[in-house]
Amino acid sequence: MASFSPPLKDELDIVIPTIRNLDFLEMWRPFFQPYHLIIVQDGDPSKTIMVPDGFDYELYNRNDINRILGPKASCISFKDSACRCFGYMISKKKYIYTIDDDCFVAKDPSGKDINALEQHIKNLLCPSTPYFFNTLYDPFRDGADFVRGYPFSLREGVPTAVSHGLWLNIPDYDAPTQLVKPLERNTRYVDMVLTIPKGTLFPMCGMNLAFDRDLIGPAMYFGLMGDGQPIGRYDDMWAGWCCKVICDHLGLGIKTGLPYIYHSKASNPFVNLKKEYNGIFWQEDIIPFFQTLTLSKESTSVQKCYVELSRLVKEKLGKIDPYFLKLSDAMVTWIEAWDELNPASKDSSKIPNGTSK
Amino acid sequence: MASFSPPLKDELDIVIPTIRNLDFLEMWRPFFQPYHLIIVQDGDPSKTIMVPDGFDYELYNRNDINRILGPKASCISFKDSACRCFGYMISKKKYIYTIDDDCFVAKDPSGKDINALEQHIKNLLCPSTPYFFNTLYDPFRDGADFVRGYPFSLREGVPTAVSHGLWLNIPDYDAPTQLVKPLERNTRYVDMVLTIPKGTLFPMCGMNLAFDRDLIGPAMYFGLMGDGQPIGRYDDMWAGWCCKVICDHLGLGIKTGLPYIYHSKASNPFVNLKKEYNGIFWQEDIIPFFQTLTLSKESTSVQKCYVELSRLVKEKLGKIDPYFLKLSDAMVTWIEAWDELNPASKDSSKIPNGTSK
Repeated sequence: MASFSPPLKDELDIVIPTIRNLDFLEMWRPFFQPYHLIIVQDGDPSKTIMVPDGFDYELYNRNDINRILGPKASCISFKDSACRCFGYMISKKKYIYTIDDDCFVAKDPSGKDINALEQHIKNLLCPSTPYFFNTLYDPFRDGADFVRGYPFSLREGVPTAVSHGLWLNIPDYDAPTQLVKPLERNTRYVDMVLTIPKGTLFPMCGMNLAFDRDLIGPAMYFGLMGDGQPIGRYDDMWAGWCCKVICDHLGLGIKTGLPYIYHSKASNPFVNLKKEYNGIFWQEDIIPFFQTLTLSKESTSVQKCYVELSRLVKEKLGKIDPYFLKLSDAMVTWIEAWDELNPASKDSSKIPNGTSK
Repeated sequence: MASFSPPLKDELDIVIPTIRNLDFLEMWRPFFQPYHLIIVQDGDPSKTIMVPDGFDYELYNRNDINRILGPKASCISFKDSACRCFGYMISKKKYIYTIDDDCFVAKDPSGKDINALEQHIKNLLCPSTPYFFNTLYDPFRDGADFVRGYPFSLREGVPTAVSHGLWLNIPDYDAPTQLVKPLERNTRYVDMVLTIPKGTLFPMCGMNLAFDRDLIGPAMYFGLMGDGQPIGRYDDMWAGWCCKVICDHLGLGIKTGLPYIYHSKASNPFVNLKKEYNGIFWQEDIIPFFQTLTLSKESTSVQKCYVELSRLVKEKLGKIDPYFLKLSDAMVTWIEAWDELNPASKDSSKIPNGTSK
């Protein structure tokens, strides 16, 4: 499908949070150049970010975010890559791909450059199968199918909302594991995509991630991290847990596996430990919270689910730390800002696969 | 671990159901010869099954099964490979590996012969992680670990009860899929093992399967199939669904993925369609039954779980067809026969990882 025109060329934005010049885009040029980029500049807005020639992009720094969102800008993290979710909100496209600026093009076992974006698009455009595990994994892939014993009534699948890609080289470990295994590299290319089953949570990493804005966009909030917050490096995790329970509630699917990118450098484990400390600790309560919560039947759109979730966060997690009261309020602010910037999308996600935009 | 003595040499039996001479063992000689084989002869007991020289085996035909079990032999299927579960029952070892006689040694992508048994043993001897998905799959494999965001309290895992291996070449498709895709071959080597999450059912195939008898043996009943029964080719599926709900209840894990065997020939899809017809139809009720059932707190051993399950089968599935009333009774007979042959194991599975035998 990519031979003449790149797939979804006019329906997908690439969102990149950064604090530096985007030289890494040179390597991605063959794959990204046809697409529109949304660059969210993290930190000092007076700094100029250089973007290689020939890319079509818009760039937002903190001043822009403040100007566009006004007081609602408080929901967007500062000095943390969690600010990327502003890009999800400002986009007018149906699909988002987001990638970190230390992620390079990986090679498949045959030595060929992997077009990560193309694989994400494949993942998003075919259904997910969250209700029953298929032992040959994604049954919609070439050369695979549903195996004997897979109920026929479940073979239609459900719309795919999220495609979670992986990383070769530096694995996405927490600070304690980084400290214990500083030299471990991920060299195993697992040629596989699968649906995360309904009712199962997973650690969603924001390094190499694609999603359908119409289906799940308003739940893709990366929370309050970084400057002035007691926690970092849990932005994507938070978004992943929220998205998973909402996808389960609304009958949408999340896939993980291919494509791989090449993660070039490990972040500093000592800095990470400081950022993660509270997350590691709080997580032991957050996970049971997400595992046991139930959204009401009245929550029929992503927005409604997300607002209900914000209330539950306040009620159940507020006891752990006042941070969760602030986060709960920010979740509501995020939805208000989303709806302001995306008036037509409000409740559009009632209709799976809807193309209301 | 295999350099001097084959792993678990005195703790594992290989169970093979067959109707023909076991020439296929020649290919497996380097891997299987150190182990003890239990051959369950299907069909006509007057036929002589030839076993290649040098293998240590015991062979049971229908006359043996009738003699050993007496009236309880009614729970063992006749003229169907489901009879293999008699081998699980008669074994005195902690671990079982079962393989079909049309399964050959597969090669990994480097062209090396795969020692399927060694990989199954690795899978069984390290923990499972059913409560949270790890995006780098089995965290206990060399070169992998738990990723950022995986709760630390869940990293100990749970004992692994079942290791479900896959097949290259002929995929394990149902008759309708075989008819539609007669030429499809599985050529994708997915270098991965994962735990099937808690609460998720999967289609367990008996072609290439290992398990821990002490942990789950009494639930590994392959049902009533073949001669005189209205259903076939659902023996392993039935066992898989029962094992999965019992593992979930008792806090045990099931892994799927590596190792691959080479499945040499497709069975006749027209014959299969006849065998499967009722299964395809009934399955639409059976799956919701297994997805929603709850075992009671009093069911603290595999045997107790299985007897409770047999009651639920009678109560909930008996309405579909009288076959399920018969199956429910056979499940109870199976447990009685199991306990008779394994008096010491009764309720041993109360203690995870117990080595009471």
